Amino acid sequence: MAEKNKILIIGGTGYIGKYIVEASARLGHPTFALVRESTLSGPAKATIIDNFKSLGVNFLIGDLHDYESLVKAIKQVDVVISTVGQGQVPDQVKIIDAIKEAGNIKRFIPSEFGNDVDHVHAVEPAKSTFNEKVKVRRAIEAAGIPYAYVASNFFAGYFLPNLNQLGATAPPRDKVVILGDGNPKAIFNKEDDIATYTIKAVDDPRTLNKILYIGPPANIYSFNDLVSLWEKKIDKTLERIYVPEEQLLKNIQEADFPLNVIYALGHSVFVKGDQTNFEIEESFGVEASELYPEVKYTTVDEYLNAFV
Amino acid sequence: MAEKNKILIIGGTGYIGKYIVEASARLGHPTFALVRESTLSGPAKATIIDNFKSLGVNFLIGDLHDYESLVKAIKQVDVVISTVGQGQVPDQVKIIDAIKEAGNIKRFIPSEFGNDVDHVHAVEPAKSTFNEKVKVRRAIEAAGIPYAYVASNFFAGYFLPNLNQLGATAPPRDKVVILGDGNPKAIFNKEDDIATYTIKAVDDPRTLNKILYIGPPANIYSFNDLVSLWEKKIDKTLERIYVPEEQLLKNIQEADFPLNVIYALGHSVFVKGDQTNFEIEESFGVEASELYPEVKYTTVDEYLNAFV
Repeated sequence: MAEKNKILIIGGTGYIGKYIVEASARLGHPTFALVRESTLSGPAKATIIDNFKSLGVNFLIGDLHDYESLVKAIKQVDVVISTVGQGQVPDQVKIIDAIKEAGNIKRFIPSEFGNDVDHVHAVEPAKSTFNEKVKVRRAIEAAGIPYAYVASNFFAGYFLPNLNQLGATAPPRDKVVILGDGNPKAIFNKEDDIATYTIKAVDDPRTLNKILYIGPPANIYSFNDLVSLWEKKIDKTLERIYVPEEQLLKNIQEADFPLNVIYALGHSVFVKGDQTNFEIEESFGVEASELYPEVKYTTVDEYLNAFV
Repeated sequence: MAEKNKILIIGGTGYIGKYIVEASARLGHPTFALVRESTLSGPAKATIIDNFKSLGVNFLIGDLHDYESLVKAIKQVDVVISTVGQGQVPDQVKIIDAIKEAGNIKRFIPSEFGNDVDHVHAVEPAKSTFNEKVKVRRAIEAAGIPYAYVASNFFAGYFLPNLNQLGATAPPRDKVVILGDGNPKAIFNKEDDIATYTIKAVDDPRTLNKILYIGPPANIYSFNDLVSLWEKKIDKTLERIYVPEEQLLKNIQEADFPLNVIYALGHSVFVKGDQTNFEIEESFGVEASELYPEVKYTTVDEYLNAFV
């Protein structure tokens, strides 16, 4: 049996990064995390770092902004996964440069983990937010680096615990605010499933230079159907308050950063249906649950049981 | 009487920009707004554009990313105020280049309108968000462009209508979530007052190469005192739920963009007290209500009356 590919994760202590690091180690890949010395020894990420240690993760000291450390780290692995935060998305050009210089990387997965940014109908400021990821895609392609883009759609942990009720810490039991008419379908995936599919894809020839869409059938719900599912679980009917698109566009215009980004992301997904309003064609994409039917993902239905 | 300085606003149809354009026209400055052709004739900003027209605002067709249009617009005025959104903050280097090339600008006010970014103790990702503005400051200074930085602190319209209860559309009447221990003081200024002070400052020698702090005494409140003021107005005691700093830092770590930015901004202001935890020294700053005592600003107390 061939040795598993070595994987470097840049941004591994971030929101989705920690799940990716964990999945990489769990699936038997020699796993490397690029971390700053201060992160490794400081208190802010101590729990995450301790968990990585217990999983046998190798730490490489470095930083996205320290080019030499980047090249040195990349030369030690086969695959690079970036999970840097939105603020560092444009800085990924430095990773691209370093991968070009290193010359040994079989697959690069840039930090996306949301909508497929080449298939969105977003208004500002979400448009610019998505566009930063588009620019990284084009730079990767121009550099001729083998890639896979992960369109993981919504993080379940972000949207399901309060059914997208901004600021709420539990799902609604009285009334629920629904963006648009509630009919376009969105996709909610649990973070560790996203990580598992991502790691499965890193050395799969079927995902080479493709978009990996994570859209398992049981996780695709319209806002209305999501509310109905929840109502059934709590055996109660909620008052549904619909925010028409025109009102939502006005809210986006009138809000300041970063609330306007939140509203505009909601518009893209819940009003425009940007996670599901196109066909995945063989020429550019593959769907994860079809490629890896053996992955027993957590369904939205199962996920919501924890909150009843 | 000398003719008033001509003012160009870049980003004038944005959240704070529209108030700045209005104040500039109201205070008798020949006022110019740089807008895209599509904005001028499109539906998205039609109400704002119509209002500008009724105020006699001059439209210059152009774009931050169209360098020639930028230089051409700048050559027609004396003062440039940028009110671009957070996503365009780094792109203001293009304005700096254009001002250098034009050579005629007496004062440049970059887009800030929040905390004084040179006096913050923010954690990521707010730290990086603030730092983008710091970089623009240093670039302006390196270019030798006469400037004023407006530290306008919190927009009242953003925080007061729901007392910083994320997602709520009215102030709380039952319980209220307070970040930290509720004791550090924050500053809440009405948007049109911020605009008035900003326009007053554009040709004031006392604000040249200084930070204009907008901190009128009646608008400085701790979270606890703000809640007490509200309780008095509605004659009711709210349940106060405190989020300790440690918990808030955990929430920031665990949230994804852009919610993590919102939490981290809250941490900077409400826990660290970054709007009020330093002395304004003559060497770097001046306070607006001291410079312009004739401005009858709306106080927090008056502002909240609208919601009783």
